Amino acid sequence: MSARERILDAAAEVMQKSGVAATTTRQIARAAGCSEALLYKHFAHKQELFVAVLNERLPRLSDPRELAGTRTVAENLATLVEQLLAFYLRSFPMAASVFSSPSLRDAHRNSLSTMGAGPDQPARLLQTYLEIESRRGRLAPDTDCHALARVLTGAALFEAFQASYAGADEIDDAGTLAARIVAVVGTDIGGR
Amino acid sequence: MSARERILDAAAEVMQKSGVAATTTRQIARAAGCSEALLYKHFAHKQELFVAVLNERLPRLSDPRELAGTRTVAENLATLVEQLLAFYLRSFPMAASVFSSPSLRDAHRNSLSTMGAGPDQPARLLQTYLEIESRRGRLAPDTDCHALARVLTGAALFEAFQASYAGADEIDDAGTLAARIVAVVGTDIGGR
Repeated sequence: MSARERILDAAAEVMQKSGVAATTTRQIARAAGCSEALLYKHFAHKQELFVAVLNERLPRLSDPRELAGTRTVAENLATLVEQLLAFYLRSFPMAASVFSSPSLRDAHRNSLSTMGAGPDQPARLLQTYLEIESRRGRLAPDTDCHALARVLTGAALFEAFQASYAGADEIDDAGTLAARIVAVVGTDIGGR
Repeated sequence: MSARERILDAAAEVMQKSGVAATTTRQIARAAGCSEALLYKHFAHKQELFVAVLNERLPRLSDPRELAGTRTVAENLATLVEQLLAFYLRSFPMAASVFSSPSLRDAHRNSLSTMGAGPDQPARLLQTYLEIESRRGRLAPDTDCHALARVLTGAALFEAFQASYAGADEIDDAGTLAARIVAVVGTDIGGR
């Protein structure tokens, strides 16, 4: 396994346990069994490691372009919501710590924004999916894709927040829960 | 102003700034200009103060029994979602810190649960509202009140999370945003 992969594994482990705010690059290097100098060869700073952990070590969302046009829109949305449940359950406790002070939060945000990253990314991906289906005529033409994407993403965030609070390792029956969330946003999506 | 009110004001201020995890009763007593002994006469522990701050110092939700049967269901839901946006914008940064370690989170949860409090309370209140309207025939009879309440609550949580991340003091056009969230969950609610 390459040094980069080992460092990412270690970063994921330490950030899961301590949250991103309390994690230091020194701790990560130690957990990876490498020097901080080697870590900095691969990653400019802790926030870059955080974004890499989110993208490469956490449950992923499907590519909207691959989903579009397959099965029904409701089934595809349920798949995306189920993936979001898994993503948020792992990322929420990791990320929550950046809210522990305004200065920490601002530093984190500024650093992520130079990488083009931010917490609306999952909702943007769902919106992209909905917009493709809308152009294909598989959604009612007046669908508010922006709001719908954010409502579904928020529903997943809420459920992951509850499960994380309860100390759950996974979300029971995530597939059923995801389908129930999608069903509640309306019958316009269901049958197409 | 009574000692209890002064202590609550101080607790709200300190918890907003530092998060509930890093806040101590000693800091709160100091900010209130009283002794810790006096603080403990009014509140058994920090978690009791936290719940009191949520209930008595943060934007409140309307009483479901008072809303039910008035205006349209969509208008009432938009009011509740708008109130949730304000509630979560203030409470999210305060509460996020309890996720900074599993042991802290478990202690917080166990303490809150002895008071019957927990993070699903806002969704339960929305569900109560929806169930009353359902019994009155103002909602489609097959409405999934549990899922709908959690989806709407989650949508508000997501928007407050984004705004909080951006460092916003309030949510722009919260009324319009709330109406857009409610509109997206389906036309069944709109006209009744």
